[in-house]
Amino acid sequence: MPTKKELLDRPIQHLDIKQHNVVPLVEAMAHMAYSSRDTYRAASIYDMMLRDTDCGVILCIAGSMISAGLKQIFIDMIRNNMVDAIVSTGANIVDQDFFEALGFKHYIADDQYKYGNEDAVLRELAIDRIYDTFIDEDELRICDEVTHQITNSLEPRPHSSREFIREMGAYLQREGKTPQGGGVDSVILAAYEKNVPIFVPAFSDCSAGFGFVAHQHARQGKPMVSIDSAKDFYELTQLKIANPSTGLLMLGGGTPKNFAQDIVVSAEILGVDAPMHKYAIQITVADARDGALSGSTLKEASSWGKVDLTYEQMVYSEATLALPLITGYAFHKNAHASRKGKKWTSILDQVAVTA
Amino acid sequence: MPTKKELLDRPIQHLDIKQHNVVPLVEAMAHMAYSSRDTYRAASIYDMMLRDTDCGVILCIAGSMISAGLKQIFIDMIRNNMVDAIVSTGANIVDQDFFEALGFKHYIADDQYKYGNEDAVLRELAIDRIYDTFIDEDELRICDEVTHQITNSLEPRPHSSREFIREMGAYLQREGKTPQGGGVDSVILAAYEKNVPIFVPAFSDCSAGFGFVAHQHARQGKPMVSIDSAKDFYELTQLKIANPSTGLLMLGGGTPKNFAQDIVVSAEILGVDAPMHKYAIQITVADARDGALSGSTLKEASSWGKVDLTYEQMVYSEATLALPLITGYAFHKNAHASRKGKKWTSILDQVAVTA
Amino acid sequence: MPTKKELLDRPIQHLDIKQHNVVPLVEAMAHMAYSSRDTYRAASIYDMMLRDTDCGVILCIAGSMISAGLKQIFIDMIRNNMVDAIVSTGANIVDQDFFEALGFKHYIADDQYKYGNEDAVLRELAIDRIYDTFIDEDELRICDEVTHQITNSLEPRPHSSREFIREMGAYLQREGKTPQGGGVDSVILAAYEKNVPIFVPAFSDCSAGFGFVAHQHARQGKPMVSIDSAKDFYELTQLKIANPSTGLLMLGGGTPKNFAQDIVVSAEILGVDAPMHKYAIQITVADARDGALSGSTLKEASSWGKVDLTYEQMVYSEATLALPLITGYAFHKNAHASRKGKKWTSILDQVAVTA
Amino acid sequence: MPTKKELLDRPIQHLDIKQHNVVPLVEAMAHMAYSSRDTYRAASIYDMMLRDTDCGVILCIAGSMISAGLKQIFIDMIRNNMVDAIVSTGANIVDQDFFEALGFKHYIADDQYKYGNEDAVLRELAIDRIYDTFIDEDELRICDEVTHQITNSLEPRPHSSREFIREMGAYLQREGKTPQGGGVDSVILAAYEKNVPIFVPAFSDCSAGFGFVAHQHARQGKPMVSIDSAKDFYELTQLKIANPSTGLLMLGGGTPKNFAQDIVVSAEILGVDAPMHKYAIQITVADARDGALSGSTLKEASSWGKVDLTYEQMVYSEATLALPLITGYAFHKNAHASRKGKKWTSILDQVAVTA
Repeated sequence: MPTKKELLDRPIQHLDIKQHNVVPLVEAMAHMAYSSRDTYRAASIYDMMLRDTDCGVILCIAGSMISAGLKQIFIDMIRNNMVDAIVSTGANIVDQDFFEALGFKHYIADDQYKYGNEDAVLRELAIDRIYDTFIDEDELRICDEVTHQITNSLEPRPHSSREFIREMGAYLQREGKTPQGGGVDSVILAAYEKNVPIFVPAFSDCSAGFGFVAHQHARQGKPMVSIDSAKDFYELTQLKIANPSTGLLMLGGGTPKNFAQDIVVSAEILGVDAPMHKYAIQITVADARDGALSGSTLKEASSWGKVDLTYEQMVYSEATLALPLITGYAFHKNAHASRKGKKWTSILDQVAVTA
Repeated sequence: MPTKKELLDRPIQHLDIKQHNVVPLVEAMAHMAYSSRDTYRAASIYDMMLRDTDCGVILCIAGSMISAGLKQIFIDMIRNNMVDAIVSTGANIVDQDFFEALGFKHYIADDQYKYGNEDAVLRELAIDRIYDTFIDEDELRICDEVTHQITNSLEPRPHSSREFIREMGAYLQREGKTPQGGGVDSVILAAYEKNVPIFVPAFSDCSAGFGFVAHQHARQGKPMVSIDSAKDFYELTQLKIANPSTGLLMLGGGTPKNFAQDIVVSAEILGVDAPMHKYAIQITVADARDGALSGSTLKEASSWGKVDLTYEQMVYSEATLALPLITGYAFHKNAHASRKGKKWTSILDQVAVTA
Repeated sequence: MPTKKELLDRPIQHLDIKQHNVVPLVEAMAHMAYSSRDTYRAASIYDMMLRDTDCGVILCIAGSMISAGLKQIFIDMIRNNMVDAIVSTGANIVDQDFFEALGFKHYIADDQYKYGNEDAVLRELAIDRIYDTFIDEDELRICDEVTHQITNSLEPRPHSSREFIREMGAYLQREGKTPQGGGVDSVILAAYEKNVPIFVPAFSDCSAGFGFVAHQHARQGKPMVSIDSAKDFYELTQLKIANPSTGLLMLGGGTPKNFAQDIVVSAEILGVDAPMHKYAIQITVADARDGALSGSTLKEASSWGKVDLTYEQMVYSEATLALPLITGYAFHKNAHASRKGKKWTSILDQVAVTA
Repeated sequence: MPTKKELLDRPIQHLDIKQHNVVPLVEAMAHMAYSSRDTYRAASIYDMMLRDTDCGVILCIAGSMISAGLKQIFIDMIRNNMVDAIVSTGANIVDQDFFEALGFKHYIADDQYKYGNEDAVLRELAIDRIYDTFIDEDELRICDEVTHQITNSLEPRPHSSREFIREMGAYLQREGKTPQGGGVDSVILAAYEKNVPIFVPAFSDCSAGFGFVAHQHARQGKPMVSIDSAKDFYELTQLKIANPSTGLLMLGGGTPKNFAQDIVVSAEILGVDAPMHKYAIQITVADARDGALSGSTLKEASSWGKVDLTYEQMVYSEATLALPLITGYAFHKNAHASRKGKKWTSILDQVAVTA
């Protein structure tokens, strides 16, 4: 049996789109077929979305994308004003981004592990596996514990995930878990500094959830922190109302996709006739045939009045191949040159919601 | 352009496993290859799970399964003590099950609509599309409004989705939206009557969310209802602690799968050394190669200490084909004969959590 | 290390649709969504195709279907006049059907083998693996050798695969490899007896190929048997000309699908204005997005003038689940009652082609 | 209804890897997860295969790859000694490469066409569709007719597809369908000039098949050309025997994959103990779960004694995204610097096989 140290020896390293000018490659793909042409079109829609400075850009992240080496792309998008809000699964934001911000890493798993035959061994070593990637479970328990502490430090009332994640950003800054402090940059920190709100609509469904459970268990019968998913939806809807023109860049489907698409309807419920999302891109390997939201086409979303048909593109590809090309294209075309950050957090600070 | 009435003319009808003894067919599949053999094995694991009367059975539902004609299977599982808790996406429970309980229906879409070329027409007619199925959007707005009213009627404090859905069951009973009252049976009603808790970890991410937003908007600055996803996780963990032996029957992945799998770890966080899920079945068309949770194998979950390796089976099939065979097999083998409902709702009523 | 005998202990057994009346189950699926509804529609098209007695039915088989337990279905289709010609990959017909006719079997592989981690062990034991199924490689070498002997016994001239496979049928009958002779029934034998031609357009691409190579190697410079794929195409085209109304039931894609679809164009090349295939069903897990023929839709085939749009249905399912339902439905509806075998072999015996 | 001219207005243009140094991008992918890491590993195996100058490199092409814009990559591989033999489906070589060599083009189809709703219109306009790509059917008929003429010009005996395709190369050169003659470069021409044999194991299953059928129809009772697929297999086996060290670069699966993998066994049948393929890469979107060869893993092939386990890599991606990265990496690393073409055609000219 290998030792834990032997298995956790090659860290995942995050791709830096700033180093790779993919513009000529992506432009050549415009004249091909299948996913290459779709990738070009998605890249050109993202470029268009950024040049349309009225448009607020919402990034949706499902799947394990940060453990896969895409973290720096998200950070670069934030720091270069290429995104205004993020809607994500909890795993990406807490178990993976916050986890790495605390100083931990993800590791490359050898091919033999990815088919599952060695999972009993991994269990014994307390190594968690995401397909071809390893995580030290003991480190993950520390991450759970930090979210527990942050939960304990908050005012005992309902919080949106957005408010909570902002506190995680404050924690990182306060504790010097920053590049300046000798640490690594993170999505949470960059979003905190750039006033980009991050929403996790199923926030208990991740490492943070363990912290919440521990908190609520200890506070039984006393005032406690709760995580109000309705408030998340209310807040995101307010952004749509404040900035009616919006575009979506979605990785995978799941709750983030549905949640972000739904704000068009939600605004309508509040009596505001908000336009459909003007631009929409989804990168996914799912297909439409099982009727699940994750693989449902953007055309289908248009039947629901959520996404406009003019500028939408599905890219059927695993995201680690397509996202560097799409975001790298827009970055090196300097599509964001005239863009200022929308600093949407400041809008939300004025939304008074208390339980 | 067709009229709305012409398009909404053939309602989805729900399959009744009680009418089809599939036992010989499924047993014949035991000796074949690929998905048929996997289906047999999944069926035999579900059979085993039901005969193991210590085991609490948790059904996880992602994807649009109720609109697809699987509602009666879920109802039969509840009414025949074949399931003890449900974890689902909001769409299945609110937009589809509660929606049908209110007297509305889903409709068959002709093949030409499922590729999306006619979605602009559907938009004009206020018809929403789920792949090959139609919904009357005006009826869906009524469903939103009913959840709004229910929200308004609740005590202004944090509620778990489980508590809220129980109120939806009470509403249906009170309003006579029952078979006895001339209405149709529903998952929410059956679960209400049989004390089967239903959890929706991303509860704002559905039709109910629109009701919450409307409620919170109207109550700004005043006491209001909030939806506490942490409480959901806390409650489901309590069930694992009260009944350590558990089995999972999962349709699709997403938040329901992750949430239900995670309670093993969550129990541990509360200091209880709960065993991994003893049985686990997942029916999905997703694959493992993009690293997303939805397609991740149950072996992978065992590396996280969540699922035991002995009785696990992935079935790679669209659920409308595989679920009738798996549940029908167990039903006609009378696997549930010695089972009484665990009535888990009664445990949860004693879990006092207030904000 | 397990022994070969231990690993090859549970033979694949073939499903018998005659034992399972699936009509009520499939009819219930008509009112659902996704693959279940598609399966119903495919079943009803197959039913229609059989009742339309003018229509010649062509079954296309790609993938490893006979090793998977579908052999008896194909045999029952032939013996009950439910198919008039077969176009297949070589593996199904030679490595699997002829192999079993010689008295050999396929075996169930335990789950742990299907991810490939034990393939080095299998290599040592001379066990070949098809996903979750085992084959004794030594037995396969015997199968190669028998095709070598049959090749040696033929007139040294170009043969179509159809002619060669007919000789394999004659061999089985002559050698008593028949149910009457104490052996097992086979697709090749049934087709031989019922005058159903079997085409394998890439005939060297299977166990038979090894026999051909050995034959041609030994006969260098002397008259020898060759395998004329042009003749196959010519013959199949003659069937289309003799019987213009045709329907396709396709499992997977590949060469069989393309070959069978192309005869419409081929007839046209010979100056005959043959109609498109009137009915077409494809069962596949492939999707359309990589542009490959295997997953291309039947609509796409209609742009090529090959398949009529009125009665076509794609079923996105692994075949061991969908085929028993589709063929069992037609069988138990007795759709073939008025059908006589078209005995197409007799037409082909009059097609004189020599090199 | 649009006119044919309006629909056929934007030709597919082929990607030129020589213009895009992807080495830094691909190297960055080495440290990520999922398909990006697999792409890096595949690229590094291809690099290794080229530096191992003993190794003969066999390229397998299934799917519609040339119509998709990958033609120039194949040409560059041939002209830069990066491939020694090609095994392909007929569509790529005849309907697409030879077709373009004759002066015709493929065209970009707008998104609305790729879902099939407009296929009846395309049928009327005689436009054939491959997912998102259009072909002028009248031009394709000319291509059929040219193969008919070439067939008529040949000696009436069995020919391997390899011999026939060589005649197609001679035809292009003779007719001035060359860059020097004002035409475009082609895979067939480049292979002809560089003595790279091209095999199409199911050669009648493409546009060439129509020419063969017309030829054999006209020559009934007289000596005629036949297409001997056994000879193809014999010839490819001879290459394995002459050059035992081999590597495979496979796009898609199908007949080309199986055929090329099988030569290890075929050599053994001829009494030569040839080693397994030393290197193997497959790019595919298929998965292993239906047991079909196209998606079967390279590990599975090792159980059959066909592929060595040390240097094998599956890349789950649509080929237009992954192939430019894999081949571009090796090209710009100059992996082929010490490689001379193996000129395998010259070996085959000495293989005397006559019927």
